Amino acid sequence: MGPTLDEARALDAADPLASFRDRFSLPKGVIYLDGNSLGPPPTKTRERIGKVISGEWGEGLIGSWEKAGWIAAPARIGAKIAPLVGASAHEVIVGDSTSVNLFKLMAATLAAQPERRTVLIEADDFPTDLYLARGVAGFAPDARLKIAPPGGLCEFLGPDIAIAVLSHVHYKTAERRDMAAISRAARDCGAFMLWDLSHSVGAVRIDLHGAGADLAVGCGYKHLNGGPGAPAFLFVAERHQARLENPLSGWMGHADPFAFAPEYRPAKGIARFLVGTPPILGLSALEAGVEIVSEAGAAAIEAKAARLFEFLAACAASRLACFDLTIIGPSEAERRGGHVCLRHPDAGRLIALLAERGVIGDFRPPDLARFGLSPLF
Amino acid sequence: MGPTLDEARALDAADPLASFRDRFSLPKGVIYLDGNSLGPPPTKTRERIGKVISGEWGEGLIGSWEKAGWIAAPARIGAKIAPLVGASAHEVIVGDSTSVNLFKLMAATLAAQPERRTVLIEADDFPTDLYLARGVAGFAPDARLKIAPPGGLCEFLGPDIAIAVLSHVHYKTAERRDMAAISRAARDCGAFMLWDLSHSVGAVRIDLHGAGADLAVGCGYKHLNGGPGAPAFLFVAERHQARLENPLSGWMGHADPFAFAPEYRPAKGIARFLVGTPPILGLSALEAGVEIVSEAGAAAIEAKAARLFEFLAACAASRLACFDLTIIGPSEAERRGGHVCLRHPDAGRLIALLAERGVIGDFRPPDLARFGLSPLF
Repeated sequence: MGPTLDEARALDAADPLASFRDRFSLPKGVIYLDGNSLGPPPTKTRERIGKVISGEWGEGLIGSWEKAGWIAAPARIGAKIAPLVGASAHEVIVGDSTSVNLFKLMAATLAAQPERRTVLIEADDFPTDLYLARGVAGFAPDARLKIAPPGGLCEFLGPDIAIAVLSHVHYKTAERRDMAAISRAARDCGAFMLWDLSHSVGAVRIDLHGAGADLAVGCGYKHLNGGPGAPAFLFVAERHQARLENPLSGWMGHADPFAFAPEYRPAKGIARFLVGTPPILGLSALEAGVEIVSEAGAAAIEAKAARLFEFLAACAASRLACFDLTIIGPSEAERRGGHVCLRHPDAGRLIALLAERGVIGDFRPPDLARFGLSPLF
Repeated sequence: MGPTLDEARALDAADPLASFRDRFSLPKGVIYLDGNSLGPPPTKTRERIGKVISGEWGEGLIGSWEKAGWIAAPARIGAKIAPLVGASAHEVIVGDSTSVNLFKLMAATLAAQPERRTVLIEADDFPTDLYLARGVAGFAPDARLKIAPPGGLCEFLGPDIAIAVLSHVHYKTAERRDMAAISRAARDCGAFMLWDLSHSVGAVRIDLHGAGADLAVGCGYKHLNGGPGAPAFLFVAERHQARLENPLSGWMGHADPFAFAPEYRPAKGIARFLVGTPPILGLSALEAGVEIVSEAGAAAIEAKAARLFEFLAACAASRLACFDLTIIGPSEAERRGGHVCLRHPDAGRLIALLAERGVIGDFRPPDLARFGLSPLF
């Protein structure tokens, strides 16, 4: 028989995060289980962006770069993301896309270590990570790409590895990798370790400092609810900031951008990883999303996601046992992220039929139905 | 004595673009002469972005990538910019910042021509162009940077030049370079020519096809009024699209991004120059700005900017002759862009005092007061 509707209602009634549902705009009758792909809009986002357009842009005009804090936005929002990933405020900055940030950090580590020429990644990592690893390895002098089998990254670490890249939470299986152990293995072989937090930030606790992590990137439009194509962020541990230079040496990464000096002089800290003019509309929407996640806290979000997974797994075990349907990925809470993938030969049709009933998940070819268990809504 | 207020009013009354002033939100009592740095918000932008947030994002959620045309936005807006720069619709695409786009195109041309290793630029070009040229030349294998003196680019063209970069309109002097002649000189020596249209798009007529141009980038937040940090665009002539590969090979540049294939296969056309997920809020605001500029047309904008310059030059000649003040740059309309720089030892204080009186220009150290003569507002 499994869990009942009454049990679900009792869990909701006891849920410390229940009130966060009202912070989001969602259509009536929709159960949105795709916040891991695109978080819904916080209710405050529309008004805030309206003020940015009419007040800061329309009234303040060019002066808003200083007076409305636009120029400080990448560092300010980075500082708000920092506690969510276990970093210090001056180690995180927001700008560009996750893909561009992957390129910057892979390129910077290749440039800083002329004796190490290999970029290492796992074969089933998120496609854009694979594509960028291939792109940077194809472009950097004498560089090459090494692709480890899924789960096999550490066995391929060696003296030629300049940088290894890995998703903290896998976009399909939701497997959460052991950040501390893998970071240590990379450090022991002298390589940089770059974590892609896109599928974990805002979904689970992340402790970059505790894990001794070197570098990370992450996405703003999934669990941070920053809006479609929101700016991404990157993390560079303080100990590496002076050594790594951004090959995309744009004017916002300059030590003194408004001097318009002909020579490039990189900013001292994390700001050297900025490139062009900060995208204020996107940044403002991201800030609203980050604030809500921060208020709830990563620990509470992770704990509720674990309860949601247990409930779903119990339902599946009792009610779906007669179907050819498997939950993939680990079942232990501490080894999972905040979404779940069910394997079924007809997963595409399953997702389409659910959507007709107002339950929105997504289909990952060829046979996975993926659902975000987003604790805030 | 020079021009009178009555003459100015008569010119306004006869101005075919006069009604465009109402399409923009500007504070009362402000004369905004800094649209060349940050264009003001079109009145329709706030409502449009509100609809994107509440309707497309809030109601359509993840489905809006297809149903609201989000995924097509970079190409759709590129196609709207194309007539403003004399290009075909499939040769322009929107995404990332001008700085990132400069990197992509410089890197792609270096990768495509292993026998040519030099990036060429002029010493007083826009700082971010210089910084990126230095960044890409420092990162690409065996590459180097050559810096020509101002105006001297063509004399440095030679068999080792992979790519030459030049602003179409200079950010200080407003000098408009001869795009056809310089493109021809680059072609004759076998080099790619990359035009930075940031200070010319939306200000003057641009004919990339007529000039036989290879490559271009341009800014969305100046004369296109796309908002602070709006996405930028890039142009790749159709004849070069198959040959040039984007080293920032992100998932949106893939031939089939939603197949999530492990191998990178670049999109056939201009879409291969996309990288990460398109920034929808910024793109939507840019689209509103581009539509207004398109409706007015580059020819009418250029003609009015020329009349505004003549008027200003006549005022300066008659009323400011007693001050140590010079208009820099060419005086012939066809050799100028849409802004003007006055040199004065106390330019910084001049700009500050004007701002107190509601006249907003900007100060470019050490001694330039810069004013945008933006015909639409």
